[in-house]
Amino acid sequence: MRTDPENGISPVSAASIGDWTESADVVIAGYGIAGVCAAIEAARAGANVLILERTSGWGGAAALAGGFVYLGGGTPLQRALGFADTPENMREFLLAAVGPGADEAKITDYCAGSPEHYDWLVANGVPFREALWDEPGWEPPHDEGLAYSGGENAAPFHAIATPAPRGHVPRMQNKRTGERGGGYMLMKPLAETAEALGVRVRYDVRLTGLVVDGDRVAGVLAQHYGERVAIRADRGVVLATGGFAYAERMVADHAPQLIGRPGAAIEEHDGTGILVATALGAATAHMDATEVAFFCDPQLMARGILVNAQGQRYVPEDTYPGRIGQMTLFHQQDQAFLVMDEQAYEEALGTETATPALRTPPTWAAETVAELEADMGLPEWTLQSTVRIYNDYAAQHRDPLWGKQPRWLRPITGPVAGFDLRHRTAGFPLGGLRTDLDGRVLHVSGTAIPGLFAAGRCTAGICTGGYVSGASLGDGSFYGRRAGRAAAEN
Amino acid sequence: MRTDPENGISPVSAASIGDWTESADVVIAGYGIAGVCAAIEAARAGANVLILERTSGWGGAAALAGGFVYLGGGTPLQRALGFADTPENMREFLLAAVGPGADEAKITDYCAGSPEHYDWLVANGVPFREALWDEPGWEPPHDEGLAYSGGENAAPFHAIATPAPRGHVPRMQNKRTGERGGGYMLMKPLAETAEALGVRVRYDVRLTGLVVDGDRVAGVLAQHYGERVAIRADRGVVLATGGFAYAERMVADHAPQLIGRPGAAIEEHDGTGILVATALGAATAHMDATEVAFFCDPQLMARGILVNAQGQRYVPEDTYPGRIGQMTLFHQQDQAFLVMDEQAYEEALGTETATPALRTPPTWAAETVAELEADMGLPEWTLQSTVRIYNDYAAQHRDPLWGKQPRWLRPITGPVAGFDLRHRTAGFPLGGLRTDLDGRVLHVSGTAIPGLFAAGRCTAGICTGGYVSGASLGDGSFYGRRAGRAAAEN
Repeated sequence: MRTDPENGISPVSAASIGDWTESADVVIAGYGIAGVCAAIEAARAGANVLILERTSGWGGAAALAGGFVYLGGGTPLQRALGFADTPENMREFLLAAVGPGADEAKITDYCAGSPEHYDWLVANGVPFREALWDEPGWEPPHDEGLAYSGGENAAPFHAIATPAPRGHVPRMQNKRTGERGGGYMLMKPLAETAEALGVRVRYDVRLTGLVVDGDRVAGVLAQHYGERVAIRADRGVVLATGGFAYAERMVADHAPQLIGRPGAAIEEHDGTGILVATALGAATAHMDATEVAFFCDPQLMARGILVNAQGQRYVPEDTYPGRIGQMTLFHQQDQAFLVMDEQAYEEALGTETATPALRTPPTWAAETVAELEADMGLPEWTLQSTVRIYNDYAAQHRDPLWGKQPRWLRPITGPVAGFDLRHRTAGFPLGGLRTDLDGRVLHVSGTAIPGLFAAGRCTAGICTGGYVSGASLGDGSFYGRRAGRAAAEN
Repeated sequence: MRTDPENGISPVSAASIGDWTESADVVIAGYGIAGVCAAIEAARAGANVLILERTSGWGGAAALAGGFVYLGGGTPLQRALGFADTPENMREFLLAAVGPGADEAKITDYCAGSPEHYDWLVANGVPFREALWDEPGWEPPHDEGLAYSGGENAAPFHAIATPAPRGHVPRMQNKRTGERGGGYMLMKPLAETAEALGVRVRYDVRLTGLVVDGDRVAGVLAQHYGERVAIRADRGVVLATGGFAYAERMVADHAPQLIGRPGAAIEEHDGTGILVATALGAATAHMDATEVAFFCDPQLMARGILVNAQGQRYVPEDTYPGRIGQMTLFHQQDQAFLVMDEQAYEEALGTETATPALRTPPTWAAETVAELEADMGLPEWTLQSTVRIYNDYAAQHRDPLWGKQPRWLRPITGPVAGFDLRHRTAGFPLGGLRTDLDGRVLHVSGTAIPGLFAAGRCTAGICTGGYVSGASLGDGSFYGRRAGRAAAEN
């Protein structure tokens, strides 16, 4: 352990702190979704709570997000809209969607607690409108409260678990400005709740390290306009500082697929929370896992075929666009082309979308697939063969290669358009600190580090491989609550 | 920091150690390739050296390995066999083969030092026979000293750097027994050299934790037949304990693609070295990266086509088989089929191979590709289209899809055989502790942890994504030397 409190990142001993600047029972670093939920629950458990926020206002990445909260297992909103989801069904889907290495205990726990968590959000002022968006899209175009956000109704998952939409979106006041988006409408009532409960907040205070007393985390060091402050935490510290999308060294060492394409909403996601805890021996998990955004309108993709640099199809085009992003970046070297005929393109343009900016005009237009293939620079016969096989099966209303749903299958005929979707991805890391079901940060030895808790994107959550939209606001709020309560009861 | 020396993994303070069981200037945990090289250099630098080895003999995974040491940049063996490799050329290849996140500084350093490292191995008794194996293979079938071991002469790398073989294999005495394989013939002279230099060895001693004195690593705790021993290190501790292929928790958290398919030679690769250092705040890198073995004879693969579950080709079949393994496991969900005609199969059976056990008979045989496609359960037209495109271009002696070399291109005609290669992979993790060019273990803050050094597969080495055979014995020996010297001079 370092004894020089100016060192940063490395833990310092409580004995080396002369005067504590301030103290609280529970000190929370970060006022995004995980921090606000931790604060509410800690305050309700009787703790005196202090939030340290690095910027000048609450919100974090959450307030700028579209606002999906991934919930299910039979929430009142799901039931009102006719979906008989269960925790077991949701669990089966998530285990399949996340893939190898999924945290079964966390996923099981999250699914079981999901309906109650929905009720808690509503009770704390988060509004959801009882309406379903049932078209392909990154998010609903209006204020619908529920949408598919993970490929639940597409291959291969629709055959593994009963499809149910689980993207719960807080009702927006003005969709287009960004200021009153779903994420803002999630954060605002929660921040008001926290402050009504007497939670104190210090803005412009940046976490730099942890203070330890023997084995126990006893407080934090931080910077406030260049001045060092030491904050004592009598019951616990909760790290809720977000991910590491903007930490170049960490991205290069752990998630190199994201080099040059960080996709987090705010640049404060620089890994600080992960660093200060790992400096103390905290374990991490799935640091390579990343969400991947793909810059194309899903209404277009569902109506066309996506091919790689060899002209081969590689994904069901009607699935969650974040899954298309992962398939493209991870498995196709970020090489993708969308091909569709004129009729499908016109049809797509006639639909609604939340992302009109992603409806770019075609890169190429041609009278035949052979011409398009040549224009796109694909080896002769590759795209033509792919289209021929696709068309033969589409005429039979099936897609034995990738399982695209019959609704979207129609042979590609007449003039065709090609869209160059190479290098149209960005993403944020999903890995972080390993925590237990109470948000306790685990040491590499497997035991909890006394006095240290974490939630949100500085931790490994429910999505540790494949991703679903709403998982970050989902596990951030869910385990934020757990961490706050556990810290207060510590 | 823990003060309970029975806790394991967590560091304990030197003050809590009553009596040191033993001491040395440099204490090395692990007597595999990294440990033996560290010992030799530390002893030559004047240090009193003690190796702690968990098993009852020297060797580690190295002594059971095929024995490739990845070296180049113009080694005497390369030059004698007519290859004008340079460090810059080797560097270009490695950066491309490793992919995003490659450690440029380490690769540049390794390539620059590679010819000298070859000389050092020879000077310390490692024999290399001046002969080239120039056929596809996991390793040479006889005692040839040099072979391609990373796809240097295949697409896409042959167009990025001038192809040069860099797999240097110590001369074997009896290839078939395993006891006198290339890895054994690498370890034996080095172990003899170390012991002639007065290096002491304690067998059956298992590392359990580090002892720290303030910021500095001052020794190790270990178990010897159930009894705790405390070993003081007056200049430094070198971790050379191997990877984490057999640490189930670590594999699930960091390299989940390897769940159920660990491929390290010895089960002692349980991540201990990584755990004891990360407990002290050491940084890790590329914990998700893995080597992938693929259980098929390369002489067969080069003469056929490999297709995935959609009947699509996905790799140049004449490349390094470890690259085929990675492409299959990471990008094709471990689904692969080999298809070749009777003539190609007969031709392959007439060649030499080091891995005759991987020459399994075909799973299916058919008169036509259409029949084979049906027998293999592939959707109609998929394999037929793939073969038609392959054949059209093979007749023109080119492969615009994947760049297979003209030497291996011939249309597939007549009766055909299909090999089921699904789930025929295994691998070991490549990630580990982040170290500098002197083998110093770096803290998550970026500074070196005083007194702590590491090398070999408990560290992230030169291959942090794509792999080449010989990289592990290569960087283990190269940075083992550096770590030993730096510890001795500490």
